[in-house]
Amino acid sequence: MPFRVSAVLSPAEPVPPAPVALVVDVIRATTTAAYLLGAGARELWLTGSVEAARALAARQGALLAGERGGLPPEGFDLGNSPREARPERVRGRAVVMTTTNGTRAALRAAGVVPEVALAALANAGAAVRWAMEREGDVVLVAAGREGRVALDDAYVLGALVAGLRARVPGIELDDGARLAEALFLAHPDARSALAASAAARALEPVGLAADVEVCARTDALAVLPVLAGREDGALRFAPVYPKGV
Amino acid sequence: MPFRVSAVLSPAEPVPPAPVALVVDVIRATTTAAYLLGAGARELWLTGSVEAARALAARQGALLAGERGGLPPEGFDLGNSPREARPERVRGRAVVMTTTNGTRAALRAAGVVPEVALAALANAGAAVRWAMEREGDVVLVAAGREGRVALDDAYVLGALVAGLRARVPGIELDDGARLAEALFLAHPDARSALAASAAARALEPVGLAADVEVCARTDALAVLPVLAGREDGALRFAPVYPKGV
Repeated sequence: MPFRVSAVLSPAEPVPPAPVALVVDVIRATTTAAYLLGAGARELWLTGSVEAARALAARQGALLAGERGGLPPEGFDLGNSPREARPERVRGRAVVMTTTNGTRAALRAAGVVPEVALAALANAGAAVRWAMEREGDVVLVAAGREGRVALDDAYVLGALVAGLRARVPGIELDDGARLAEALFLAHPDARSALAASAAARALEPVGLAADVEVCARTDALAVLPVLAGREDGALRFAPVYPKGV
Repeated sequence: MPFRVSAVLSPAEPVPPAPVALVVDVIRATTTAAYLLGAGARELWLTGSVEAARALAARQGALLAGERGGLPPEGFDLGNSPREARPERVRGRAVVMTTTNGTRAALRAAGVVPEVALAALANAGAAVRWAMEREGDVVLVAAGREGRVALDDAYVLGALVAGLRARVPGIELDDGARLAEALFLAHPDARSALAASAAARALEPVGLAADVEVCARTDALAVLPVLAGREDGALRFAPVYPKGV
């Protein structure tokens, strides 16, 4: 059981070493990651660059997913929208994904933390159950946006803190975790909290505002993408279904 | 009148260029700065290092104030406690101050922002009135702690955001400002909000926990330390008493 929860709200701050990390880019990378595995994708690879994603997908016969500036790069099979994660497209397939902020956050966390999973509101309950079953402290890592603290990710960190606090007696929080929890508790409605963020507003001009509603659906999924391997700087996530209530 | 308020919550993030900045290290540097000028100090110099503080104080015949590890360096006249800012010690004097986080934040802000003031809960109303009278957008800069987001400073940024929002119709907030405001609104009691922070807890072992109560007293002072000059990397702040309600 974890005893300390720390939250890294800013992408400019280093991730402190810890045995367990939950990485959050709720609008939209970690939400889409959960939806891809929930729709039956076999595994999900994250790469830092579009070029690395193309090369890896070609080697693995995988689908290509992701975005730059909110939209899929040329030749990609899927964007970074959870609404595209449909079973008829992804079931049984490996997916290679690259996004702007979420991928970078996952790579930062995986650089110092051995056990890493991708969390969002869609699988917040699953993320909390998984983290509780680990040994040792938990660090929550917000992807942020353009190098800055992001409201939407901080809110989801708060949801995770509140979930862990409700289940683990005597858990210790650092300042970031306390701040995130206060933000979460101040907004009973996830949709309005996410909608106020810069990330949500940036989806409007590219016609993807409907994604925000999907990103706000809490505990829609029981699956958690958990780090299962690394290869040539890419991270491989496999679907895990944490037990418990 | 300002139209946009952005908040830099993390000391690891760059301060964006803006015409006006309020710098906050509520436990304790910017609180102590306000109390020093409120007690009649003529001016306040901030320097980045203990050595620079000693040299400048010797040149100016100034008092030396500040801390390393929470306590005054050897030979300093005052620590970094607002309770030491008594008129009989500081009236009419120049004070040279150096602290761990707050001084660094002021230097970061002054590097990109022309009009800079030091804000805390003690002078939050004065800070809001002063910022409202400026032309252009306002950036709020939290000193943070050990390179990370700090609960206490984020809370005070929220108080400043709420104050500006109440007075400036149609003002725009960035994600950091929204987060800080939510934290402030979630804690009706400033003392309990500050007391939960790592900065407050770090004062207990050095016997300075009573400072937290002084730092939590909102609008105790009408004075704002405003940047009035720069010399050899040091910043000179003069007392300003903003008018209005």
